[in-house]
Amino acid sequence: MRNIAVTLLIALLPYPALAQKSTPPSPAQVAEAVREYRLENEDRIIRELNEFLAIPNLASDTPNIQKNAAHLVEMLEARGIETHLLSIAGRGPVVFGKLISAEATRTVLFYAHYDGQPVDPAAWTDGKPFEPALRDAAIEAGGKRIPFPENSAAHPGIYNDDWRIYARSSSDDKSPIVALLAAIDALHEKKIPLAVNLKVILEGEEEAGSPNLQRTLELHKNLLGGDVLITGDGPVHQSGRPLVFFGNRGDIGLEITVYGPVRALHSGHYGNWAPNPAMELSRLLASMKDADGRVLIEGYYDDVTPLGEVEKNALVEMPDNDADLERALGIANPEGGGKKLVELLTLPSLNVRGLKSAYVGEQAQNVVPDRAEASLDARLVQGEDPQKKFEQIAGFIRKQGYYVIDREPTLDERHLHPLIAKVVDEGGYRASRTAMDLPVSKALVKVVQSATAGKAVIAPTLGGSVPMYIFEDFGLPWIGVPIVNYDNHQHSSDENLRLGHLWRGMEIYGAVLADLNW
Amino acid sequence: MRNIAVTLLIALLPYPALAQKSTPPSPAQVAEAVREYRLENEDRIIRELNEFLAIPNLASDTPNIQKNAAHLVEMLEARGIETHLLSIAGRGPVVFGKLISAEATRTVLFYAHYDGQPVDPAAWTDGKPFEPALRDAAIEAGGKRIPFPENSAAHPGIYNDDWRIYARSSSDDKSPIVALLAAIDALHEKKIPLAVNLKVILEGEEEAGSPNLQRTLELHKNLLGGDVLITGDGPVHQSGRPLVFFGNRGDIGLEITVYGPVRALHSGHYGNWAPNPAMELSRLLASMKDADGRVLIEGYYDDVTPLGEVEKNALVEMPDNDADLERALGIANPEGGGKKLVELLTLPSLNVRGLKSAYVGEQAQNVVPDRAEASLDARLVQGEDPQKKFEQIAGFIRKQGYYVIDREPTLDERHLHPLIAKVVDEGGYRASRTAMDLPVSKALVKVVQSATAGKAVIAPTLGGSVPMYIFEDFGLPWIGVPIVNYDNHQHSSDENLRLGHLWRGMEIYGAVLADLNW
Repeated sequence: MRNIAVTLLIALLPYPALAQKSTPPSPAQVAEAVREYRLENEDRIIRELNEFLAIPNLASDTPNIQKNAAHLVEMLEARGIETHLLSIAGRGPVVFGKLISAEATRTVLFYAHYDGQPVDPAAWTDGKPFEPALRDAAIEAGGKRIPFPENSAAHPGIYNDDWRIYARSSSDDKSPIVALLAAIDALHEKKIPLAVNLKVILEGEEEAGSPNLQRTLELHKNLLGGDVLITGDGPVHQSGRPLVFFGNRGDIGLEITVYGPVRALHSGHYGNWAPNPAMELSRLLASMKDADGRVLIEGYYDDVTPLGEVEKNALVEMPDNDADLERALGIANPEGGGKKLVELLTLPSLNVRGLKSAYVGEQAQNVVPDRAEASLDARLVQGEDPQKKFEQIAGFIRKQGYYVIDREPTLDERHLHPLIAKVVDEGGYRASRTAMDLPVSKALVKVVQSATAGKAVIAPTLGGSVPMYIFEDFGLPWIGVPIVNYDNHQHSSDENLRLGHLWRGMEIYGAVLADLNW
Repeated sequence: MRNIAVTLLIALLPYPALAQKSTPPSPAQVAEAVREYRLENEDRIIRELNEFLAIPNLASDTPNIQKNAAHLVEMLEARGIETHLLSIAGRGPVVFGKLISAEATRTVLFYAHYDGQPVDPAAWTDGKPFEPALRDAAIEAGGKRIPFPENSAAHPGIYNDDWRIYARSSSDDKSPIVALLAAIDALHEKKIPLAVNLKVILEGEEEAGSPNLQRTLELHKNLLGGDVLITGDGPVHQSGRPLVFFGNRGDIGLEITVYGPVRALHSGHYGNWAPNPAMELSRLLASMKDADGRVLIEGYYDDVTPLGEVEKNALVEMPDNDADLERALGIANPEGGGKKLVELLTLPSLNVRGLKSAYVGEQAQNVVPDRAEASLDARLVQGEDPQKKFEQIAGFIRKQGYYVIDREPTLDERHLHPLIAKVVDEGGYRASRTAMDLPVSKALVKVVQSATAGKAVIAPTLGGSVPMYIFEDFGLPWIGVPIVNYDNHQHSSDENLRLGHLWRGMEIYGAVLADLNW
């Protein structure tokens, strides 16, 4: 019956591919079949996602991150995927799965991570990052909280595309995992065979910088054989259009602490005598970039590998929606002295991701603080070395007159050095890029364009960081096929997933599994 | 018996005052009598202090601040002090008390506050700011927590002078209140009559800026008749020596928020395109002061009333222990371009008391923050107007190119103005000074010097702020006679009281009550 339904469906579709080849169905036809499956099974898909989101997933929260892994094993095995846990001492394991397709000659690896960024529940509108909440639109658009539909199994298509699920990792990265598995269910239900073998690699400490991924995969190198790796991490293009990307930036983190008096002092009895560390930190940070956002640290741009012709052309082809973004985000004057966002993402960045010194607002105390802290991250591009980048920044701080250490200063050091900075290297990893003109690169773009009526944006690099250098080192070309909405509050409070994006993501993944061939 | 004991004691004392006048006893003799009483009653005094400290006392915590006031009424009435609560809607009342002495012709008012600064329990070593903890030395000096002595009533003098009680308001200001009441007990026990009538004014919202004190006292002006006001607020001199001060700085607070994108953005996808508010705030703050700490805001020092000759001389007489302070506090190079601390306290200050933007350390998220906040306070000196000071600072921010508002910006405003600062005026009050050559000023210095073997430091002004301008406006000269140790962590975590200072404070207050006369 089902087979007949699919055949009928395919026969009715207006895509030209149909005439040339009816087995396998074209990407557009597969997308249509997945959509039909989804309309009938929204209840089941959302339930699976919500159960997954309900498990807290900070990488350092070992008991919970282990629960996530155990839950993933169940989810994968339910699809007949052979699953192994590649264990990491004290951390969540890499969840590895393998699904062999009888007629496949190619093997696709799929990477995503199941851990999430830290949460501050007080900053979330609903206060509970691990209790998925449904809203009828984005909070910024006045979205109201609504109950998850009861008895939704009896109401196909009851979930509106614009509805959003709010929870940590609803976008980054639990939903791509759920989308992939739901796509497999759809192909199975619609009796569409997979064109490729599939291996999944699901990491539990990406948001902590993937410190163990490379070593863990090296220990299990025999499992990794394949032809291309696809990552589901990251958001789609800000235009709302689907995205395929061929590179990403690297990332390093560092924490800077500057010191005032050995303890916070009464600002009346010591104010304008005791040096103020918040003021010193401000002066230090202000010296790092000019008003256009250009980094003033010596040699900061020296190691950048320039883009090739193919990438330059792709950049030109990308839609320019900077003006829309500026309006939506309330930005009057972006950094970069007039350069487009997509151009800036091909350069290294230096970002102050956090500041703290004593207290502000209601909690403010009339003190000269004893310390001030800044958390920085720098994004790296092709050609740059993480360790060297850290040294450049630390060296710059030293040149500003600071005594730079990597631990708390002693009282003697404080008394000896007017300016002291503790600069802690949190490590990071380099950028990575796959050539856009490889056969597999072209084949994948073709499938995604076909599944999305040619709407996909093709980008030489993503601004964000995924540890793809690891797979590059294993000799695997990798390509990014993200699915979630760009305005998902990734890494911040009120992270969310627009359901229309989840549905489209299922269709894209279904088409790739059914049609990728080169 | 007791009277005889006192007489005997006086007869044995070597002070020259004794020969001239045996009734009342000299300040030194009174101090000795108070000490004798204290040695026998440490248990009782510490118990009273601890019970008082156990009541949380943030001014905005209405139920608890009311409990403090009710507790104070009991404490005062136990001494036969006629007590009234001068109520303030939604806040802790002013606790007013009156103790008439049959032979007195002068009336002394005593001011202190019973509210405390906000607390962050996590920042306290013992985690519980309202559970007094005893240590055998300061935490910085390796002080260990010890139990309060059991059955201490049976062991006179069991409390070591160097022991410290850790709790919010253990110094600021609950212990001066307890010291005053214990001094009254001592005089009563030793049958030493009070030379003056005493009125006490105990405020419950000084740390919140005393917004209602003036109005409340005006409504009860009839209660305020008197000749001089003594305040017990503030610490003694950093040398450890007692202090009498004749002025204090005023204070204003302001909160500055600068804005980035409308929501925190992924630092990879938007880093070096989205303007970073933490960086902008750093640039703004850095522009406010030079490296020597001199404020660069136009006209910042223009309204300062220069010191008179008497005050200048007093400044010269003050001990210079800046070098000791620099060593103890781990300061290599104080602000002020070489000026002494006591000189700098006669100038207005500008202090960054707190910074906040997104998160640092373990909680850091890879975002471009949506906002960055700074909390500032400025200390004012004689001649300066709080409102004008605020306008100077806000005007400076405007001159740096900021669109300055006092509320959250709209999306349109964000999109229109590259730099937006919300600047919230938290109000404040002006500085105040009493002439050091008034008869009462000289008489008080004489009593305190006599009670402390001439050790007291006499200061024209304190760096801190107490709302003494209010009493100045009522035509009351006022003088500061603080008692607590300077290293008390006032306003910060681990606030503490060195017991030797409490004991000496009792002696000074006893001498003033028994001997002030002019």
